[in-house]
Formats: sequence, C-alpha cells, structure tokens
Amino acid sequence: MITFVLVHGAWHDGSAWNPVRQQLESQGHSAYTPTAAGHGKGADKTVSHAQSVQSIVDFIVQHDLREVVLVGHSYGGTLISKVVEQIPDRIKRLVFWNAFVLNDGESLNDNAPPHYRSLFDPMSEAAPDKAVMLPFPIWREAFINDGDLELAQRSYAQLSPEPYQFNEKLDLKKFYEIIRSGQVACSYLNCSEDMALPHGEWAWHPRMSSRLGLFRLVQMPGSHEVIFSNPAGLAGKLIEAGRD
Amino acid sequence: MITFVLVHGAWHDGSAWNPVRQQLESQGHSAYTPTAAGHGKGADKTVSHAQSVQSIVDFIVQHDLREVVLVGHSYGGTLISKVVEQIPDRIKRLVFWNAFVLNDGESLNDNAPPHYRSLFDPMSEAAPDKAVMLPFPIWREAFINDGDLELAQRSYAQLSPEPYQFNEKLDLKKFYEIIRSGQVACSYLNCSEDMALPHGEWAWHPRMSSRLGLFRLVQMPGSHEVIFSNPAGLAGKLIEAGRD
Amino acid sequence: MITFVLVHGAWHDGSAWNPVRQQLESQGHSAYTPTAAGHGKGADKTVSHAQSVQSIVDFIVQHDLREVVLVGHSYGGTLISKVVEQIPDRIKRLVFWNAFVLNDGESLNDNAPPHYRSLFDPMSEAAPDKAVMLPFPIWREAFINDGDLELAQRSYAQLSPEPYQFNEKLDLKKFYEIIRSGQVACSYLNCSEDMALPHGEWAWHPRMSSRLGLFRLVQMPGSHEVIFSNPAGLAGKLIEAGRD
Repeated sequence: MITFVLVHGAWHDGSAWNPVRQQLESQGHSAYTPTAAGHGKGADKTVSHAQSVQSIVDFIVQHDLREVVLVGHSYGGTLISKVVEQIPDRIKRLVFWNAFVLNDGESLNDNAPPHYRSLFDPMSEAAPDKAVMLPFPIWREAFINDGDLELAQRSYAQLSPEPYQFNEKLDLKKFYEIIRSGQVACSYLNCSEDMALPHGEWAWHPRMSSRLGLFRLVQMPGSHEVIFSNPAGLAGKLIEAGRD
Repeated sequence: MITFVLVHGAWHDGSAWNPVRQQLESQGHSAYTPTAAGHGKGADKTVSHAQSVQSIVDFIVQHDLREVVLVGHSYGGTLISKVVEQIPDRIKRLVFWNAFVLNDGESLNDNAPPHYRSLFDPMSEAAPDKAVMLPFPIWREAFINDGDLELAQRSYAQLSPEPYQFNEKLDLKKFYEIIRSGQVACSYLNCSEDMALPHGEWAWHPRMSSRLGLFRLVQMPGSHEVIFSNPAGLAGKLIEAGRD
Repeated sequence: MITFVLVHGAWHDGSAWNPVRQQLESQGHSAYTPTAAGHGKGADKTVSHAQSVQSIVDFIVQHDLREVVLVGHSYGGTLISKVVEQIPDRIKRLVFWNAFVLNDGESLNDNAPPHYRSLFDPMSEAAPDKAVMLPFPIWREAFINDGDLELAQRSYAQLSPEPYQFNEKLDLKKFYEIIRSGQVACSYLNCSEDMALPHGEWAWHPRMSSRLGLFRLVQMPGSHEVIFSNPAGLAGKLIEAGRD
C-alpha cells in the first residue's frame, strides 16, 4: 500500500483533494493533503516559494512519513522539486501531474506562455498583497473544459488568490542530482485535454516531462481539473503512477 | 437546451448529419442541418465560397434562429467563420470540429499539405464544372480509418463532387475581431485518429485550434468521419463542446 | 478472415504473441508467430539482419502463406520492410505496430535517441557474442509503464539478449517502391503511452508512420508492451489495422 502526499496547484488548497483522498483510502492507501503556506481562503498571501516549500517539508517530517509517493499538481510541481532536495530519504517517488518541471535557474513564468505573464504581472503589481486570481473565463474554458457550467462555477468558488511566486527563479541543481542518480524515481501523469498550458510549443508533455530523464508516463482523458471532474479516475491513475 | 446548426464538410451534404441530429433531438436539443449551396447530389457545383456562406446565413435568418451553437466540420469551418461575420448577434458559440480555422487572407489550400493541392488542382482544371471528388483509397485509409470496408463503401456512396473553392483567399478580419473580443465563444473538437490532415506539421490541432485564442478543447477517439462511424459519440461531444 | 504473420520486436521471441494469437484465432483468424533467427533463449546470437529477415521469408514460403497481413513490432518493423521486398505477392498489407520504418540507407540506431546508442554500443562491444540486454529499470518505466511490478518482472523473465544488428544500414529502395506504388497497403498502430521511443522529437508517430505515405492510422491506449499488459485489446486493434 502506498503513502501519498498530495500537493495542490495554484489557487487550490489541500481540501480540493478530498474526493481523491477518499478514493485512495477506500482502496487501502494512505493519503495526506497539506495546504502549502500562503494558500487557501483567509491565508496571508505574502509568502515566498521557500516558505511554501518549507511548510510541506515540515508536514512530512512532523507526521514522520516515509517511503512517500509525493505528488505535485501544476504549480505544485515546483514545490515537490524543492521538497525532495531537503528530505530525499523520505521520498520514494515523485509524481508530476500536469506539473511544472523547471530547468535549473528558471521560474514558473519562464515556462508559461506570454499571455499568462502579461495577465498576471500587472495584476500582481496592483494588488496590496501581490496575490493574483485566475479569471473565470480562463478557468471555465481552458482549465475545466471537461466540466459543465455548474461544476465550473462550484469549483471556482473553492479557489482563492495565489501568492505571486511565479517569477521566483529556483536553484534545482540538487533536485536534478537526486533524480538523475535514480535515488528517487519519477512519474509524469498527463491529462490529454489539459489546456491550462496550450498544446504545442508550451505543452506540459513532453516538454516538461522529458526533463525528468527516465520516468514513467501515465495518461488519462480529461482537463487540468480532473480533481473536480473525475476524482475517481484521477485516484486510479495516481496509483498507476505511484506504485513500484 | 442547445440550438445547433450543423454545417457539413466538403463532399458531404446536410443529410450526413441525420443520425447525429436524431441523437441531439432525443436528448432535448434542436439541430438544423442545412446543405450549403453547391453541395449534395445533383447540385450546380459552380458556386463561390461567398454563395455557400450566404446559403447558411439565409437558412439561419429564414428560420429566425437565435442563441445558435454553430458547428462546422472540416471545410465547414471556413463557412462558419464567414457566417458569424454577417450575423454575430444570432450566434452564441462556434464549434470547429476538425475544421479549418484560416488565418486572415489565406485559402483552404494554403493550410493543406502539398499532396492534396497537387491532387486537386489538376483534377479541378480538367472538370467542366471544376468540381473535384475525393479518391476512394484516401477516403478509406485517411478519412474513415476507424470503419470497416462496408461502412467505408456505404458512406462513400453518399458523397458528391465538391465545388472547387479551396484556392479562394478569405478576408477574416471581422471574424477575428468577433472571437478575440469574446463576443462569440469558441470550441474545438478534435478526433484523435483524424488523419484527413496528417499529424505533425499539418495537423488540425493545435495548429488550427490555437488560432482561436481562448477556446474550449474537447477530444474524442475516432477518425475524420465519426459522423458515420460513431454518430452517438459525436453527438455527446458536440454537447460538451456547445454547452455554456 | 485474416491470415496474420506476427513478427516480434527486439528481446522478444514468437512465444510473446501467444495470448494475442489465441485471441485472433478465437475470432476466426489465422495467426502465425515465427521467431526470427538469432532470437529467443538459447539461440546463437551471432546472426545478421539479413539472416533474421530470411528466416521470416522462409517461414512464410514453407507454410505457403498468401494474402498475408504481416505485422511487425518495434525492431520487427525493420524485418517486415525487408521481407516484403522478397515476397511482395504473398503480402496483402503491412502493419507497423510502434515499429521502425527506416529511411532508405539508415540503421535502427540512426532513428533512436542518443541515450540508447550510448547504452548499447559499449554493451555490445563488451559481449562475446555482441548481443545486448535491455536493463530492467528501462523495461519497467519506459517499456511496460502500464503494467504493475509483478507483470514487469514476469514478462522481463521471458526476454533474451538481442543480436546487435542496430547499426546495420538497410537498403530499402524496393520496399519504398512497393508501398508507394500501392502494391501492398500499410497501417500503423500506435499505442498512446508508448515511451520506448520518447514522445516529441524521437516519437514513433508521426515521425516513423509518415514515411509510409498513404497509410491507415489505428491508435489505442497503452505502453510499448500491450502484448503483455493488454493482449485482447491489441488483438482487436490488429484486426482493425489489418482488415481490408
């Protein structure tokens, strides 16, 4: 049985995983769903990427979790890449689910198409806490394209502004040493209708996934938000991605 | 409930949609399947692209259709792009199903691989009415690759020569103003085994779809001709693409 | 009903097809599963590509098979491309299942990513019979990514070292004459999670498949090794690829 730690993406918090967690637990696995620092409704959004990373490290250490399959969704990929640098001995496998795998020294925005950068940079500039919100039309059409309008609205109501860490450039030398040496294995789960990053030049897969070297590819139908539109299917694919 | 107007592709006419229309109606939607001018058996094939467009506009106006989800298949994408320029207030959403989305000033042939151009240009030259027919081997292998031979033959018998509008260059400035402003929403439905345009450099998606700006992607298994090989599946995905 | 000759890939032998063969036979088709010379446990591995080809030709002639649908998997694609040159009148259709379609004058290694070449060249150099084995971690993560560990181990135990023909450059002029003339039809079956060749620049499809000219594309979910993880599904798709 697998010990999952599930790390959410931008605008989400740990509660978004609840239906997935229940699916995993009903099949005998353990699943932990920490909310990264700076995330969730009412949280102080003025936190750095390092602080968000540290909150996940602390969660794993405090719960003394071992042999962890550490899953990161979207922005969460940037968190798990840094978490594993601090506690590689507790991590058995990293699973990037339509998640950013940054090159050493790059920021998330270095890997996002220009229209996102030109949307979020001024939005952050104008916000007192620099946090940014995803506009609903983008959510509905490009993030949860496989859901109906009611689901799109209901899930959007669960989101909250994102601390603006998208321009922080990350030192990932140790991450690449760890995965290239084979000390920690890697999987990439790709949803085939995920358009949060557009297909083609800026696509998640194989652009991001190929940076992992030898990795296990798992794919499923669905949008960037199968966490809402198909949690049972997502749970099944996380098991396929996470098992030995 | 959705009001669909379904615009067929080259060599097809409106009757090809019958099984899809019945599926949509059985689920409570309205579906209209006009045949574009110059199309269908026995029609005069010496019509321009503008005339084919006008026939669809006239159909929508005469039936006083509003809040229309206007679907175009293949060549039909070039029709709906021009139809929406004339009656944007009647159109709620455009759905391009493996359909051409031309850049402003381009022709269909500007977006087709060279082997089609070198096949159809001389064939049109030699025909009294300039109309062209799709050779059966291409139909069988590249258009309806998911059907058996009997279905390929039966559906081929429903086709008719296509008025040769493939070299007409279209002014699409108003189309792009309408969709870029968000006045009319867009979806792109892509069948994953569609080889009417070969995968790679000349593929439908994301080459054509990305020109739409913010759009909703829907995908399904199947060939360019799921209208024949899987009409119920196609109807379901048109609803997914067409809903709010 | 179809007469299949199923040609295995590298490290495999004909017995790997047994469950697929049974599926095909249970649906009324004939299926032959020869082991190419130099392949299988205990075989002399010092055989050339021409010798492996000849063994398949001899099998078909000795069994007096006609109207054959000749299937090649992976490296087996290089065999069937040369087999059809010798006995085109016995072959009705070639089916490349995630198989190499080499350009005239190229070797398999000319079409494989550099990390394979740098792995296998020195391994062959060091082996008395020049044969090479696929390391288990690559098998588990990149070849049979859709199986569980138990299946990965059990199927790996069926493999055997591969005669090192990967650098032999093949004259394929006659092959291309045969398929370009339409004398023998072609299909390409692509498994969407096949990472034996990584997606992107080095992908099976459309890189290899597009060399066939007019061909029938069939796709299915799964890894490079659905022969083990989904033999019934594979059999169904081989019928779809192989029928008229």
